[in-house]
Amino acid sequence: MPRKLYTLCGTDKARPFSPHVWKTKLSLAHKGLAFDIAPVGFTEIPKLEEGATKIVPLLRDGEKLVKDSFEIALYLEQAYPERATLFGGEGGKAMARFVEGWSQMTLHPVIGRIAIMDIHDSLDPVDQAYFRRSREERFGQSLEEIAEAGRSDIKAFSTKLEPLRHMLKAQPFLGGDRPLFADYIVFGALQWARIISPHRLLAAGDVVFDWFERCLDLHDGLGRSVTAA
Amino acid sequence: MPRKLYTLCGTDKARPFSPHVWKTKLSLAHKGLAFDIAPVGFTEIPKLEEGATKIVPLLRDGEKLVKDSFEIALYLEQAYPERATLFGGEGGKAMARFVEGWSQMTLHPVIGRIAIMDIHDSLDPVDQAYFRRSREERFGQSLEEIAEAGRSDIKAFSTKLEPLRHMLKAQPFLGGDRPLFADYIVFGALQWARIISPHRLLAAGDVVFDWFERCLDLHDGLGRSVTAA
Repeated sequence: MPRKLYTLCGTDKARPFSPHVWKTKLSLAHKGLAFDIAPVGFTEIPKLEEGATKIVPLLRDGEKLVKDSFEIALYLEQAYPERATLFGGEGGKAMARFVEGWSQMTLHPVIGRIAIMDIHDSLDPVDQAYFRRSREERFGQSLEEIAEAGRSDIKAFSTKLEPLRHMLKAQPFLGGDRPLFADYIVFGALQWARIISPHRLLAAGDVVFDWFERCLDLHDGLGRSVTAA
Repeated sequence: MPRKLYTLCGTDKARPFSPHVWKTKLSLAHKGLAFDIAPVGFTEIPKLEEGATKIVPLLRDGEKLVKDSFEIALYLEQAYPERATLFGGEGGKAMARFVEGWSQMTLHPVIGRIAIMDIHDSLDPVDQAYFRRSREERFGQSLEEIAEAGRSDIKAFSTKLEPLRHMLKAQPFLGGDRPLFADYIVFGALQWARIISPHRLLAAGDVVFDWFERCLDLHDGLGRSVTAA
């Protein structure tokens, strides 16, 4: 059975934007594992693999089915231990959970607000309806109101990256001399913004911009294979 | 030559509050290494060990002299590899730099504002003058204005801890099942607040409160050996 990654897509299947799927694509490339892509819209996700998941990425690896980008990274590390490590040991595995927490609790809500109309507009009509309903319920505001709030986030976004700037004084990647899954976690968030939103959240001259460029170059420029919005 | 840790103190030498020194105390205890304490005021630091440092902690370990809590942790890991690890491997070592970045760029400025008058008031007169001059220069405001700004930080402080809450859903410590130096990095910041400021920044019922209590219990309750302000 081939290796297959279920990914999120909008109308244009050539512009995958899900931050979590990007984490997994880079994880698979990091391990040097080939995979087929199966892009699906939001409303198709619950129908995949006999209702195996409500979220993507979902990875089928032979008999094995694994969902959630962090769970997939843990699975790949355990299933392919002879290949390049994604965590750099037990301490790295534990601390990657904190990096995930920081990325998801600090960067994701802001990027989500900034890009919410862009995401909506990129979807098929059936997914647009689902997206509007679910996000308006989650935020307690209309998409348009969320986007309005997002406009004031754009300026402040750069200050959220201070922890990365501090880290980059000591080393070129979150993983140290080389990237680890922790880099892909943060990359995923910024790649999501890069692909879906015309707002440029990183500026040349910023060490975080340089780090992001290094990440775009990884694995034969996998991240760069989709152009910026 | 005995092992000696130079630490910061105010008028009451029994109430050490420096976040960075707490990181090192717990690091030494983690490695099971005995040490003598040499408490000094801000203005005495440049005179230590023939001008070896502008900051504490400063560790003398036999012939070796090491400053900066992260550098000391790296040194201890390398010098005492047979004892409990402080990093859990190379990935943990790299990601601890990010945890340091998060703690210092996110928590420290806020705690610094909230507690600035408490810190000032705890110092000897000569150190009070130095502290006022250097902090007013750094912030471009009087201590009293900084403290005023700090009052509005108290309510918002809890939201800064969201990355920790996310991580604590998966594991009891930043280090995973057991604490690592990354835990001591964040502990140091909150222990600083606990000892110097009467404002309680953590509330019972919060998973971060529970984690902090676990940290206070570590190494025979080393953190608890100084009471809360």
